[in-house]
Amino acid sequence: MIIVMKPNAADESIHSIIQYIEGNGLQAHLSKGTEVTIIGIVGDKSKLAAENIMSFKDVHKIVPVTESYKLSNKQFHPEPTTVKVGNTTIGPGTLTIMAGPCAVETREQLLSIAHAAKQGGANILRGGAYKPRTSPYAFQGLEEEGLAFMKIAQEETGLATICEVVSHEAINAAVKYVDMIQIGARNMQNFYLLKEAGRSGLPVLLKRGLCATIDEWLNAAEYIIAEGNPNVVLCERGIRTYETATRNTLDLSAVPVLKEKTHLPIIVDPSHSTGSYRYVPSMAKAAVACDADGLMIEIHNDPANALSDGPQSLTFKKFYKLCEELHPFAQLVGRKF
Amino acid sequence: MIIVMKPNAADESIHSIIQYIEGNGLQAHLSKGTEVTIIGIVGDKSKLAAENIMSFKDVHKIVPVTESYKLSNKQFHPEPTTVKVGNTTIGPGTLTIMAGPCAVETREQLLSIAHAAKQGGANILRGGAYKPRTSPYAFQGLEEEGLAFMKIAQEETGLATICEVVSHEAINAAVKYVDMIQIGARNMQNFYLLKEAGRSGLPVLLKRGLCATIDEWLNAAEYIIAEGNPNVVLCERGIRTYETATRNTLDLSAVPVLKEKTHLPIIVDPSHSTGSYRYVPSMAKAAVACDADGLMIEIHNDPANALSDGPQSLTFKKFYKLCEELHPFAQLVGRKF
Amino acid sequence: MIIVMKPNAADESIHSIIQYIEGNGLQAHLSKGTEVTIIGIVGDKSKLAAENIMSFKDVHKIVPVTESYKLSNKQFHPEPTTVKVGNTTIGPGTLTIMAGPCAVETREQLLSIAHAAKQGGANILRGGAYKPRTSPYAFQGLEEEGLAFMKIAQEETGLATICEVVSHEAINAAVKYVDMIQIGARNMQNFYLLKEAGRSGLPVLLKRGLCATIDEWLNAAEYIIAEGNPNVVLCERGIRTYETATRNTLDLSAVPVLKEKTHLPIIVDPSHSTGSYRYVPSMAKAAVACDADGLMIEIHNDPANALSDGPQSLTFKKFYKLCEELHPFAQLVGRKF
Amino acid sequence: MIIVMKPNAADESIHSIIQYIEGNGLQAHLSKGTEVTIIGIVGDKSKLAAENIMSFKDVHKIVPVTESYKLSNKQFHPEPTTVKVGNTTIGPGTLTIMAGPCAVETREQLLSIAHAAKQGGANILRGGAYKPRTSPYAFQGLEEEGLAFMKIAQEETGLATICEVVSHEAINAAVKYVDMIQIGARNMQNFYLLKEAGRSGLPVLLKRGLCATIDEWLNAAEYIIAEGNPNVVLCERGIRTYETATRNTLDLSAVPVLKEKTHLPIIVDPSHSTGSYRYVPSMAKAAVACDADGLMIEIHNDPANALSDGPQSLTFKKFYKLCEELHPFAQLVGRKF
Repeated sequence: MIIVMKPNAADESIHSIIQYIEGNGLQAHLSKGTEVTIIGIVGDKSKLAAENIMSFKDVHKIVPVTESYKLSNKQFHPEPTTVKVGNTTIGPGTLTIMAGPCAVETREQLLSIAHAAKQGGANILRGGAYKPRTSPYAFQGLEEEGLAFMKIAQEETGLATICEVVSHEAINAAVKYVDMIQIGARNMQNFYLLKEAGRSGLPVLLKRGLCATIDEWLNAAEYIIAEGNPNVVLCERGIRTYETATRNTLDLSAVPVLKEKTHLPIIVDPSHSTGSYRYVPSMAKAAVACDADGLMIEIHNDPANALSDGPQSLTFKKFYKLCEELHPFAQLVGRKF
Repeated sequence: MIIVMKPNAADESIHSIIQYIEGNGLQAHLSKGTEVTIIGIVGDKSKLAAENIMSFKDVHKIVPVTESYKLSNKQFHPEPTTVKVGNTTIGPGTLTIMAGPCAVETREQLLSIAHAAKQGGANILRGGAYKPRTSPYAFQGLEEEGLAFMKIAQEETGLATICEVVSHEAINAAVKYVDMIQIGARNMQNFYLLKEAGRSGLPVLLKRGLCATIDEWLNAAEYIIAEGNPNVVLCERGIRTYETATRNTLDLSAVPVLKEKTHLPIIVDPSHSTGSYRYVPSMAKAAVACDADGLMIEIHNDPANALSDGPQSLTFKKFYKLCEELHPFAQLVGRKF
Repeated sequence: MIIVMKPNAADESIHSIIQYIEGNGLQAHLSKGTEVTIIGIVGDKSKLAAENIMSFKDVHKIVPVTESYKLSNKQFHPEPTTVKVGNTTIGPGTLTIMAGPCAVETREQLLSIAHAAKQGGANILRGGAYKPRTSPYAFQGLEEEGLAFMKIAQEETGLATICEVVSHEAINAAVKYVDMIQIGARNMQNFYLLKEAGRSGLPVLLKRGLCATIDEWLNAAEYIIAEGNPNVVLCERGIRTYETATRNTLDLSAVPVLKEKTHLPIIVDPSHSTGSYRYVPSMAKAAVACDADGLMIEIHNDPANALSDGPQSLTFKKFYKLCEELHPFAQLVGRKF
Repeated sequence: MIIVMKPNAADESIHSIIQYIEGNGLQAHLSKGTEVTIIGIVGDKSKLAAENIMSFKDVHKIVPVTESYKLSNKQFHPEPTTVKVGNTTIGPGTLTIMAGPCAVETREQLLSIAHAAKQGGANILRGGAYKPRTSPYAFQGLEEEGLAFMKIAQEETGLATICEVVSHEAINAAVKYVDMIQIGARNMQNFYLLKEAGRSGLPVLLKRGLCATIDEWLNAAEYIIAEGNPNVVLCERGIRTYETATRNTLDLSAVPVLKEKTHLPIIVDPSHSTGSYRYVPSMAKAAVACDADGLMIEIHNDPANALSDGPQSLTFKKFYKLCEELHPFAQLVGRKF
């Protein structure tokens, strides 16, 4: 933590900050320039809420110099992590394809889609049983019944499965039926749920919040890992910006940024980010080209009658075509699926 | 819902959409212009996921014409709502001042602050016992012990009390101790928690999510009211933008917009939005001038040693001064405190 | 400028940075912490493009410690500036009301509006003769003819006048007819135009760019002042965010932030920011309450037939009412109009 | 244009709008639903400023149904445009690589970089002679001298050349020396400059404004084409969001969106968008994978001593490596360079 004083800060102001730092058992490192004075804090910063120093006199700004996340930080864990999910893995060498419907609607619908997902080359089946919807009057999911269908689909196809969870109850149900749980964008800073997910024992896919910074996202991952669960996979799914031509703005630069900052795998969701099946193939290829560890793609047997997110779902035919097109790109970046 | 077709849309495309609409028990209203054809949907739109029509051929865009929230909608409830909280009310004629520390730290700290809040003229004491923090290593709150201190402060001062809740457990504890619960920005779309809050029986302060639109916010309120709890108060607390001179950007225009769209009271939090005690007085006055129903202000006996959000907390002296300055503004807009 | 090195940065990396700094005639100030090493740069930083140091090995980040604007900086000019415009002034003690049509349409329209502006209490008449419009097919303004009408209106009413300029030619014309020129949001970083405005000899109203930070805005002001023209007034007119309930998001917190950072007056435009006449009165009052030096308000004799921005224009009746309501607020903050 | 009335709008309100529309020589098409009434406007909408209808009584909202840009609109020009620049072309089948320094610094610097650009496989040399800089105290470019160096580089290497222009004078100079001019992000809505660029006779690269929507961008292109210059190429260079891990957020989804909306070629600038050479290769590959028509990449012989944007410039070695890696991606999408 560095404290930058205002030009012409009074000696008294500087002195009282140094006293405050030392009074908290830390060391202050003073550096007087021609224009400004800077005070560095040396020692275990968890001992004081350094941001409070902003309320001292003559302070211009405070600059953190180290990240608050440790377990998800590449600096302390340089090797990329591989996460095992059912009979597959997410990480180096693999291009993970998670495919499936936004919402599980019926047993028949799910099985039909699961077979298509497998045929295209997916290794994980996605399907929502608990749906966080903007309006209370929209379809909210089949809940445990939907999870049971996921289990059946897993047994029929051999695909690993993933479901979003939104509460303690949903986690308790999910552990009985699926191989991986997902924390959705709207719950990325539901810290209570993150801790529960950390204790669930299942690998966790952590979607980026709609307006979360990359640092906040890694801190959210830290909540899960700090509960003893190192199996966290990040999922970029678009951020909220002023542009309305797409549902959200896919922040694909987050992929190389994350590869620098963390050892956790990172997958990309071109369906939720763009909000339109027409843009999914382009963004899927772009994600593979910039070395994402996988993709999460919505597919549906009948998009026009989907209970949720029809407009962004690929038909089976379009999904097969995309998977074929993805193969040479995967090969170029040294990944298999 | 209006469907705007592409120029030169094929008759066949138009026909298949009409068939789809009518097949779902609704009526289609066709309007052919020189440039574009428009199809209106007439009837109970909850019968179909109209957004799916985007995946039909030759569709240019879909435009909703009615809001999905009903219970929080001023169109169906034109009179402004007054919410009773302990021995005070929030709504027309009153300027509600909620004041207190970001986090409850000790019994002594809280009582000292509660007395100052009362002395300044606050009618509700705020204090966090469950703190959602970006990092898992930051102070997370005293939990039930903190709630118990709030109860003591209420008994000592007569102030009504409000606490943020972050989980089912927190709600269960809060109902025993406080007069109002708060759903924080990060949980605004934690729909599970919204439903629980709706069933708690307590009035609910619903903070705006960091990147929530006003429509999403009113839909979140709808979740609470739909559970049978009409006592919802909205709190604007700044939205996330590119500007970093303030912690967030206070969207004060939301106040007149909300006064048009909803009957629910709306208060403003100048502390979290600006992130600096230096900007709190200006924004507090501006909020009163544009007819907000109240303010939520952080105050602290010792900002330099606050365990959370010290930089944005007012000292007692500054709080008293602000309250004095606010009185004539309150008078101008016909509100008392 | 402070350079924060990565943890475990090699001595060699640190050494090569110090060499680079000293090779550019500056001094490096080394500070080795337990976790990170920090290098401060002391001396006249204009001698090197310090941002380039990001491309050196083991550099974590670079933190500027001083602002690049000097002439607009309050640190070097603590007293608030008063800007003279025609027979009025903008600054302490005055609430400047600029009112008028978005676009000058006809002589009769302008004169009618000018008289209404004066009657309400405005001291400056605004009116656009050069209109930057999103589409090339929208009305682009009367150009010099419009300026001539402004001159007539000034002579008839005694009001000072302001017009937006968009080019060298427009500035050359404006100096013949009006008392103040305006640089619009879209040209805030048209540095060529800023320099021309600086050389025009007229006071300049500098609107904030749609996505300009406060620092970029003050740097833009610096361009004008650096040409020898200290008469710059800033105008907050809303920034672009994800929220669509208003045309833009009025960043009213910018007022107290600017009062800290600069000595220049700051006025607020509630018309362009909200985009609706319905929200103008609330935001006008809020702006006065938080101590803005003035307001820019669009009024029109016939909003339904305005050639530009009709929806956000007040009718004369609404403008008179607003001015009456503003008087007690102005009095509370010690300003007259 | 569709006008959506409020529920229970008075017949009188509806009638006065119809009268207004018909009074302007257009037809109104009324559609009464159970909940809301909708009025469509049929005819040449340029005859009235339809947005003004927002100020009529009982109007809920106004929805445009056609885009205001025509010449850049794919609906009226379905075939993709190929733009000739010097001895090369931008468009289908080609992967255009524009490479060069942010700023032209010296003749030697530019020639050295030009040769490297050519060796890597670039077909266009970029180099800034007029630099729009946030601070007036930063290096502003060599102006005409820099353009002359570009001419020399073109003659020595055979590469086509492109330079940013910021004023009428810069355009007048540029036409004597370079093959293509660039309108930078900050000038995207400098409509005066757009018109001048349209009249210059040279092909124009139009960068997206920092907070421009795709529709505003295409309207800006329309300004150029409307002056009789159809040779416009778009360049996505990142938009401003709340995320600070990268300089801006590259909106790669804009590529498929633009391929749908316009016939103009679209290239991607991974250097300015990410702001760091470390992220350039990933985003360059992603851009090619999603079928961009080209890339604009900053390279420098000595990034540490670059006068502008050193941190985002690739060294020659890194540029050669990237070009090699790009070849198989270009092949996959059917493009050559």
